Amino acid sequence: ARRMLNRGLAPVDVAHLLESTPPRERNVLWELVEPDLQGDVLQYLGDDIQSEFLSRMDAEQLVSATEGLDVDDLADLLQRLPNTVIHEVLQAMEAQERQRIETVLSYPEDTAGGLMNTDTITIRPDITLDVVLRYLRRHEKLPDSTDTLLVVTRRDELIGTLPLNLLLVSDPSILVREVMNTDFASVQATAADTEVASLFEKFDLISAPVVSTDGALLGRITIDDVVDVIREDAEHQVMSMAGLDEDEDTFAPAWRTGRRRAVWLGINLIAATIVSFAIGIFESTIQQITALAVLMPIVSSMGGIAGSQTLTVLIRGIALGHVGGANVQWLLVREMLSGMMNGVLWAVIVALVAIVRFDDYKLGGIIALAMVINLTVAALAGTVIPVLLKRLKIDPALSGGVLLTTITDVVGFVAFLGLAAAFY
Amino acid sequence: ARRMLNRGLAPVDVAHLLESTPPRERNVLWELVEPDLQGDVLQYLGDDIQSEFLSRMDAEQLVSATEGLDVDDLADLLQRLPNTVIHEVLQAMEAQERQRIETVLSYPEDTAGGLMNTDTITIRPDITLDVVLRYLRRHEKLPDSTDTLLVVTRRDELIGTLPLNLLLVSDPSILVREVMNTDFASVQATAADTEVASLFEKFDLISAPVVSTDGALLGRITIDDVVDVIREDAEHQVMSMAGLDEDEDTFAPAWRTGRRRAVWLGINLIAATIVSFAIGIFESTIQQITALAVLMPIVSSMGGIAGSQTLTVLIRGIALGHVGGANVQWLLVREMLSGMMNGVLWAVIVALVAIVRFDDYKLGGIIALAMVINLTVAALAGTVIPVLLKRLKIDPALSGGVLLTTITDVVGFVAFLGLAAAFY
Ligand SMILES: [Mg+2]
Ligand SMILES: [Mg+2]
Ligand SMILES: [Mg+2]
Ligand SMILES: [Mg+2]
Ligand SMILES: [Mg+2]
Ligand SMILES: [Mg+2]
Ligand SMILES: [Mg+2]
Ligand SMILES: [Mg+2]
Ligand SMILES: [Mg+2]
Ligand SMILES: [Mg+2]
Ligand SMILES: [Mg+2]
Ligand SMILES: [Mg+2]
Ligand SMILES: [Mg+2]
Repeated sequence: ARRMLNRGLAPVDVAHLLESTPPRERNVLWELVEPDLQGDVLQYLGDDIQSEFLSRMDAEQLVSATEGLDVDDLADLLQRLPNTVIHEVLQAMEAQERQRIETVLSYPEDTAGGLMNTDTITIRPDITLDVVLRYLRRHEKLPDSTDTLLVVTRRDELIGTLPLNLLLVSDPSILVREVMNTDFASVQATAADTEVASLFEKFDLISAPVVSTDGALLGRITIDDVVDVIREDAEHQVMSMAGLDEDEDTFAPAWRTGRRRAVWLGINLIAATIVSFAIGIFESTIQQITALAVLMPIVSSMGGIAGSQTLTVLIRGIALGHVGGANVQWLLVREMLSGMMNGVLWAVIVALVAIVRFDDYKLGGIIALAMVINLTVAALAGTVIPVLLKRLKIDPALSGGVLLTTITDVVGFVAFLGLAAAFY
Repeated sequence: ARRMLNRGLAPVDVAHLLESTPPRERNVLWELVEPDLQGDVLQYLGDDIQSEFLSRMDAEQLVSATEGLDVDDLADLLQRLPNTVIHEVLQAMEAQERQRIETVLSYPEDTAGGLMNTDTITIRPDITLDVVLRYLRRHEKLPDSTDTLLVVTRRDELIGTLPLNLLLVSDPSILVREVMNTDFASVQATAADTEVASLFEKFDLISAPVVSTDGALLGRITIDDVVDVIREDAEHQVMSMAGLDEDEDTFAPAWRTGRRRAVWLGINLIAATIVSFAIGIFESTIQQITALAVLMPIVSSMGGIAGSQTLTVLIRGIALGHVGGANVQWLLVREMLSGMMNGVLWAVIVALVAIVRFDDYKLGGIIALAMVINLTVAALAGTVIPVLLKRLKIDPALSGGVLLTTITDVVGFVAFLGLAAAFY
């Protein structure tokens, strides 16, 4: 098994294997990974598992494990460590390497600066392409995903790019300055990682230079790391809809899992208690007509489903940048129309079921009206909630769902029971 | 506005603008886009809008609009057209171009073959790198995202790759055969697009050659198109959780929106009716103790939330390839333990609230027990449902949620009302 782990599998596969293994066996496997391969494996692990393994290593082990890692990947690992340990690891490095890491570490993890690597190949504008070709040949290899050389001034100011594709089709005798691209995409170090991802997607980039506010070249971001941002972003959305964290280890122990989920259940209990109070107002009506208690969940669940559909469309529209400003009003009208349409459709069917089952025309009319009201309100709430939350800079994927179903539950129950109280 | 659309904005931005505009204004804008730019804009539009615009164009307009598009992007567009129109458009093309498109069209859209482009640069193994460099210089430009030259035999069999990064650092006098990479990643044309995406992510690829079953080179896939697959896949998951289609136009008219959503609401109504029948069994118990009706939603909603958390973790684990085989049993135990833990915790709190509110110790005990039962069943259902659905090749993100909440609702209500019927 040890040989397999250390030679048969790629580090990314070893990481995947560790992530697919429950804690006890995982620890056994991890011990089998050779110390100088551990850093390579660590970079591919999820945040939670990474932190756990890192916390068990001392500075010396960390230094030997992380030797040879890319600056960006090393910085990611260091960010999970306590400050004293970071300091120790940095002390053990060469001055140049340390300075590079410190540059990346000075930016938050979710910015272009935190995402960048420092492995740029820079050239001067006043040399010929032939000199560039000879300069490249002096390298043993070029950094991964190098598709572009960066043209800088003596003061490290980025003034152009020379894509390898351009270098290879151009006449070697001309100057870099004459062929270089001056209308290139670059990223500010403080830009959000999601903005960087949009830029890469839009212009089909493979790498992009990162610059400081005064135009100095700091590093570059490569598409493979952008792909990871896109994946993590998508996972974040799905997980946060259930009140979960995307960094969570799939095989976290029961105790930790239970504790983390308790918070979300507590929030939901508050919402459920509010809903319960709304029903409580009509206790005497329910005592009079118990059929109401039997039919209640139909009204609330249809409202919840319809509202979630609107909410999902809006959250997606906002995330894609389609929704905002004037078109929100158009969407509100569209959602209300569509909600009413389905309200009427399903109200008629539910009313028929209620009439057949309880032989009570009045009850049929009441549930029908309650459904139309609830599906219309669901459309309204599903549109307004994400727009409002976005404006308040609250993640609509995380809290939108609870808020929405609380509203549709309360409105559904109050409409249904209230109409019954009024008409019986 | 016309000048802005046709010269000021990139085609991808025009597409984004169209996607962010309600139908009436959108049609006005579309008319302003110059005919020979329409194809460029079309390739960036969502599937639904694309189909709509395409259906209004005749073969002649299509031919002029799609001139200059990449083979893969053109194939994507053609796939949305009726067969007769495809035929007409193909007839208007040169033989070579037509043959390329037909190759791509012969594979389903969600396979490597459907994703590939035919813009490969191929070289022979027995020439020197210097000859390769001179051959490249005869090109006006290299295809986008060219990071690798493909080494083929006379019979177009792929035998190696020559990354540009390797070409640029190697001695020009040596042969391609001596430096080429023979241990390269390649994709079968019939491979699923999600598999292709995993491969790109795992090995940080920029492009990968696509081969037929007999090893012949068919084309190549580039990372920009893989990024689109990853995005679409993520969107598919989020949208299908609400019973929606990721291809849907954000600004689809009310009538179409309402009609599409009706199906999902209908499925949910069946589920809600089942739940309602379960409650109906205990109608007389509710008549006796109306407090039950007031507290009912707390039991079911806590079960639904807890179950969704388990479900989400499992669906993600399955998607990431972490879950499967022996470790499912470990997860089941973990989820049940964590479910019981939270069941007991919140049961105590809910019991206290019920006792204070209704001054009834028995009621407190009953709701507590019902909650422990429901949260344990929720953990069980949340684990088993996605594993089973996956085995039945049903998308758990689409149907897992309805199935789960139907189970937790029924179990929650039956446990709560049944215990009450037994103890009062
Ligand atoms: Mg993370
Ligand atoms: Mg980083
Ligand atoms: Mg793109
Ligand atoms: Mg990197
Ligand atoms: Mg990376
Ligand atoms: Mg996170
Ligand atoms: Mg699509
Ligand atoms: Mg392209
Ligand atoms: Mg395609
Ligand atoms: Mg990767
Ligand atoms: Mg393409
Ligand atoms: Mg593309
Ligand atoms: Mg689709």
